[in-house]
Amino acid sequence: MFEEKETEKIRKLATLIRYYILTMSTEAGSGHPSSSLSATELMACLLFGGIFRFDLDRPRSPNNDRLIFSKGHASPLFYALWGAAGKVSESELLTFRKFGSPLEGHPTVIFPYTEAATGSLGQGLSIGLGMALNAKYLDNLPYRTYVLLGDSEMAEGSQWETMQLAAHYKLNNLIGVLDVNRLGQRGETMYGWDLDAYQRMISSFGWKTVVLDGHSIPEVLSAYEEAIKSDDRPAMVIAKTIKGKGVSFIEDKNGWHGKALSREECDRALKELGEVDKSVRGDIASPDDLRPKKQPPKSAAAMDYPKDKPVATRRAYGNALARIYPEFPNVVGLDGEVSNSTYAVIFKEAYPDRFFEMYIAEQNMVGAALGLARRGKIPFVSTFAAFFARAFDQIRMARYSDANIKFVGSHAGVSIGEDGPSQMGLEDLAMFRTILNSVVFYPSDAISAEKLVEEAAGRDGIVYIRTTRKETPIIYSPADEFPIGGNKVIRRSDRDAVSVIGAGITLHEALAAHEALRKENVSIRVIDLYCLKPIDERALRRAVDGTEAIITVEDHYREGGLGEAVRSVLAPWPGQIYSLAVTKKPKSGEPQELLDYEEISRKSIINKVMELISSSEAAGSKRVAR
Amino acid sequence: MFEEKETEKIRKLATLIRYYILTMSTEAGSGHPSSSLSATELMACLLFGGIFRFDLDRPRSPNNDRLIFSKGHASPLFYALWGAAGKVSESELLTFRKFGSPLEGHPTVIFPYTEAATGSLGQGLSIGLGMALNAKYLDNLPYRTYVLLGDSEMAEGSQWETMQLAAHYKLNNLIGVLDVNRLGQRGETMYGWDLDAYQRMISSFGWKTVVLDGHSIPEVLSAYEEAIKSDDRPAMVIAKTIKGKGVSFIEDKNGWHGKALSREECDRALKELGEVDKSVRGDIASPDDLRPKKQPPKSAAAMDYPKDKPVATRRAYGNALARIYPEFPNVVGLDGEVSNSTYAVIFKEAYPDRFFEMYIAEQNMVGAALGLARRGKIPFVSTFAAFFARAFDQIRMARYSDANIKFVGSHAGVSIGEDGPSQMGLEDLAMFRTILNSVVFYPSDAISAEKLVEEAAGRDGIVYIRTTRKETPIIYSPADEFPIGGNKVIRRSDRDAVSVIGAGITLHEALAAHEALRKENVSIRVIDLYCLKPIDERALRRAVDGTEAIITVEDHYREGGLGEAVRSVLAPWPGQIYSLAVTKKPKSGEPQELLDYEEISRKSIINKVMELISSSEAAGSKRVAR
Repeated sequence: MFEEKETEKIRKLATLIRYYILTMSTEAGSGHPSSSLSATELMACLLFGGIFRFDLDRPRSPNNDRLIFSKGHASPLFYALWGAAGKVSESELLTFRKFGSPLEGHPTVIFPYTEAATGSLGQGLSIGLGMALNAKYLDNLPYRTYVLLGDSEMAEGSQWETMQLAAHYKLNNLIGVLDVNRLGQRGETMYGWDLDAYQRMISSFGWKTVVLDGHSIPEVLSAYEEAIKSDDRPAMVIAKTIKGKGVSFIEDKNGWHGKALSREECDRALKELGEVDKSVRGDIASPDDLRPKKQPPKSAAAMDYPKDKPVATRRAYGNALARIYPEFPNVVGLDGEVSNSTYAVIFKEAYPDRFFEMYIAEQNMVGAALGLARRGKIPFVSTFAAFFARAFDQIRMARYSDANIKFVGSHAGVSIGEDGPSQMGLEDLAMFRTILNSVVFYPSDAISAEKLVEEAAGRDGIVYIRTTRKETPIIYSPADEFPIGGNKVIRRSDRDAVSVIGAGITLHEALAAHEALRKENVSIRVIDLYCLKPIDERALRRAVDGTEAIITVEDHYREGGLGEAVRSVLAPWPGQIYSLAVTKKPKSGEPQELLDYEEISRKSIINKVMELISSSEAAGSKRVAR
Repeated sequence: MFEEKETEKIRKLATLIRYYILTMSTEAGSGHPSSSLSATELMACLLFGGIFRFDLDRPRSPNNDRLIFSKGHASPLFYALWGAAGKVSESELLTFRKFGSPLEGHPTVIFPYTEAATGSLGQGLSIGLGMALNAKYLDNLPYRTYVLLGDSEMAEGSQWETMQLAAHYKLNNLIGVLDVNRLGQRGETMYGWDLDAYQRMISSFGWKTVVLDGHSIPEVLSAYEEAIKSDDRPAMVIAKTIKGKGVSFIEDKNGWHGKALSREECDRALKELGEVDKSVRGDIASPDDLRPKKQPPKSAAAMDYPKDKPVATRRAYGNALARIYPEFPNVVGLDGEVSNSTYAVIFKEAYPDRFFEMYIAEQNMVGAALGLARRGKIPFVSTFAAFFARAFDQIRMARYSDANIKFVGSHAGVSIGEDGPSQMGLEDLAMFRTILNSVVFYPSDAISAEKLVEEAAGRDGIVYIRTTRKETPIIYSPADEFPIGGNKVIRRSDRDAVSVIGAGITLHEALAAHEALRKENVSIRVIDLYCLKPIDERALRRAVDGTEAIITVEDHYREGGLGEAVRSVLAPWPGQIYSLAVTKKPKSGEPQELLDYEEISRKSIINKVMELISSSEAAGSKRVAR
C-alpha cells in the first residue's frame, strides 16, 4: 500500500528523531525521553508521511494543520520533529530545558511551532476543539487539528467533556492520536494495554476509532488515511506503543517516566539505534493558500439606558457584546449552558453564527476558548462566577499561551440570594487576580459594564469581568470613561470623614450609607473601584486623599478580594483600613438579608463610620469627625 | 411482580411529594420544581420501595445507605422525601429558601439528612465514590450509596472520572440514578431522550446499566432490584423522565428550569394532582446494626532527621503521614498518580490498605475525599500544588459540607526548575487562602513539615500544606512547636535593620542573605511565616517589632500570597513593606537561576536591604541603618 521508499525514509527520520530525543534529554539531565520514544513513529508518520500540511516558514499561517502535544512532557519528541524538519539545529536542540532556551521543559509559545502551552494533562484536546470549531464554523478553512494524547491523561474528565462536544459539533477535522504506552508516572494506567477498552469508550462517545500498532509505519500511515476519510465524526487513532521504544533496557519498564539517561546509558542507547543519518530531512506537505472568512470592522452602536431604570450588569454584558460586535468582528461568544442567566443569550440571538453553546463543561469551554484565541479570535466566555473555579487549571495554563480571552462571571456574591452558597461566586476575584498580568473589572452599573466590556475587547490578554445578578441603578452617563487601573469618586466633599471603597453591589450599599449619613450631617467619600487589577496607586491615593480612614466593602471572601487589593496597594498608609467582607458561611435568603448577615450592607458601613467617628472624637482628632 | 398494594402506596406518596414540591417552591417564590417532579417516582421507589436502608432517627449511623442529590437543584424533592418519611413537617417545608431555614436553595449539611452539600453540578457521583470506597475497603460495611444525577450534568468531565475509577475499584455498592428529563437550564441537552447514547457511554466505562421509564413504579422498582444484584460493577439506572411531570402545562416545556409556579398556577397544578393523602407516610427499611472496622489509636513514632542532612519537605510529608498514622487511624491517603513525587508513596508502602491511587483525575479525587471525610475519615490528598487548581470548584464546595480534608501540594513555585511553568504551583496559596476558615501551612524544613502534618491531622477542617521539591536544610529541632497562626523568628538581634518574612524555599534565601549581610555588618531579622492563614496579628507584630521596614519574599504570584497576607494583617503599619514575588512569566532553568530571574533570591533580598539602608541613611533615620 505504501512505497517501500517512503516507509524507509520515515524509518530513517524516526531514528534521527530518537537520536535527538536521547541526546537532548541526557544533555539537559532531565526530561521525558521514554514518553517521547513511544510516540516517535506516530508523529514521524503524521508530519513526514504526507498527511500533515504545514508551511514551515509561516507557522502562524491560517491554513496550516495544527499539532498540539497534549502530553506536553513528550517535548523532546516535539522539538526533535521540527529538528528533523530542518527548522531547529542539533546545537539548538541541546539547549533543551536550559535557562533562556525556547525549548522549555514543556512546550510554551516562545517556541514558534507551539500552538498552545501544555504540560498540565488533559487540556490539549479541548484546545484542539477550539481550533477545529474555528476551522469549520468561523474561518471556513480546510485545516485539520491533530492532538497527541497520553493514555494516563485519559483519566482526566476534561477529555470526556471534549469528546462529547466534538461529536456534538461533528468536528471531522479534529483527530486525536492516543499513545497507549501502558505506563504512567508511577505505574500502570487503569487500562494498561487494553486497547479495546479505549476503543469501546471513545467510540461510544460518537468518535470514529482506528486501533493499530503504533510502531508499524505502514499501519500508522493507513490509520491516518482512515482517520481523515470523509465522515462527520471526529477521529481517534488508538495506538499500542511501548514506552522507551528503541532502547531495550528502558522499554516497557516502570521507573523511567520523568528521567533522562545518564551519559553512559545514552551511549549504550545510541549504539542500539544503529546508524543515524543526520542529513535526512523530513518533507512536510504544503497547505493551500486560502483566506479565512472575515468581516471588516464597523463602528459599534450607541447604548441606551434611561437614567431611572435599574439594569443588572449581567444584562448589560449581553447588550454590550451584541452592540460592539461590529467593531470587534473577531469576537466569539461561549457559554456553559446558562446563557439565559449570564445574558450571553442576547449576543447569541443577535449573532447565532458567532456563538457556541458549550454545555455544562467549563474545562472544555476554557480550553476551546484558548484554541479560538490562538487562531485570532476574541472569545468571551461566560458562566456563573463560581463555576469558573471548575476551569482554574485551564485559566492558569491559558496565561502561558499569552491567551487573549475574556471571562465574564455572573451571579457574584451572597447578593444572589435564595439559591445559596453553591451558586455564589465568592472566590472568583482571588482566582482571577492571581493570574499573572490579568485585568479584573467589577462594574457597578449598566453603563460602566458596557464600557468595560468594550475596554476588555480592545485589550490583548486575560480579562475578567464580574457581573451582578440583581438590577442596580444607573449611576454613570455614556460620556464617562473607565480606563484600566482607574477608579471613580462618586461622592466627595471637603469634609469627608471616611473613604468607602466598594464595587458592584456594595457600591450601591455605600451610596445608601452616604445618603443616610448625610441626614446625620456626616459625609463620607464613596469610591467605585471598578478595576481591581491593576490598580493605579496614585489614582487611588488621590481618591482617598484628605480622609483619615478607609472602609473597603465587598461581596467576596476576605482573602484575595477588593480589601486585600486595596490594602496591598496602599501599604504603607498611615490611617486605619477596615475591610468588610464575607466572613460567615453564607446561606439562602433574600439578597438584602444576606448582605446584612454578612455585615457588608449599608447598615454595617454606617455602623463602622459612626464607630470611627466616636473613637476619633474621643481621641480629639479633627479629621474623622462630623 | 410487585404487589398492587405496594405500588399503590408509592403512588400515593408520589402525589404527596409532588404536592410538597409545588407548595414549597411556590411559597418560596423560586426554586426548581420541574427538575424535582421528573425524579419523583425514582426517589419515592428508592426510599419507600424497600430498597433503601436507613435509620431515620440516626441519620449519621454508619450503617445507613447514603443518598446524594448530585442534581442539588432538585432540593424540593429532596426535602419532600423526608417530609413523606415523617421527618419534616409541612410547615417546616414551607420555610424552604427562607433565611435561617435548614432547607436551603441547594442542600447543605445544616439539614441533617444531607450527606454533602451539592448545587455545583457533576460532583455528587465522586462524593458517592468516596463513601462507597469507605464501605467496601475501610469500614467493611454493607451500606450502599445512591446518587441522583441530572442528564445535563453528564456533560461535566468529573462524572467520567468517577465512572472510570468506580469501575476500576469494582464499587458494586455505588448506584447512580440518571434522571433523563431531556431539558437543561436553557434548552435541550446534547443527547435529549437518546437513552441508548447514555447506556452506550456508561456501559463502555464498565458499569452495569438498566434503562427504564422513570415514571413507571413497577419498572423503577425492578430496575433497583436489578441494579443491586450481586456483580462486581457499579450500576447506573438510566430513566426516561419528563421534566415537570404531573403538571400538564409545564411538562416537557422549555423555560421552566429554575422557576416556581405562581400561586394561581400552583392552584391549577394541585387540581391536576387530584386527591392528596396527607396522612400517608413512607416506611424506610432498617439497616443491620454493624460496627465499622476500626483500629484504636496508638502513639506516633518519633522523627529522626540528622541536623546536617537536607531533606525536601515533600519527603517529610510522606514520612510524617506514615509516622502519625497509629495516632490518627482515621487517616486515608489519596494521590493523583504522582505519589513518587509527592512522597505519598511512603505512606502507601507502609499502609497499603489505607491508600487509594486516584490516577490523574483531581476533581474526582477531591470529591472522593469529601465522601470519605463525611464518613469520618481524615483524607490527606496530594498532588502537585499546581494541579489542585483542577479541583478548585470541588474544594470550594467541600467547605460547604464542613469537610475535614487535608490537601498537600508539592512542587510549589519556580524553584522546581526545569519542568517549567505548567508544573509550578504559583496560585495555590491564593486559592487555598480564599477558602472560608481554611488553614494554610508552608513549612521550610522537614521537622516543621512533620509537625504541621500532625497539626493538620488533629484539626477539623480544610488545611492546605505547601511542600517544596528541593531539599532544604534542617533548621528546627523536634522539640519546637508550630501552633496554628504563629511564626518563628529565626534570626534576631537588637540592631536588626529590616525584617525579612519568608516561608518554604524563600526562607532559606533569607537566611543566606542574612549570612551575607552579616559580613557587611548589616543585621536583618529573619521570620519564618510557616502559617499563612490564619495569622496571629499580635505574634507577627511582635516578630517585626523594632524594625522599620519589612520585606516579604515568596515563590508565588503577588496576588493572594504571602506578601498580601502580611500587608493585609499589618494594615496599618507605619513603615515600608516591600514584597518580592514572582512577577515575570516563569520559564525552564535551574532553580537558583529562576529564583534570581524572578528577583526572589538572596541577591534581591540583599539588594533591597542595601537600598533601604542607603535611602534611610540619606534621610538621616537611625532605624534602618547598619
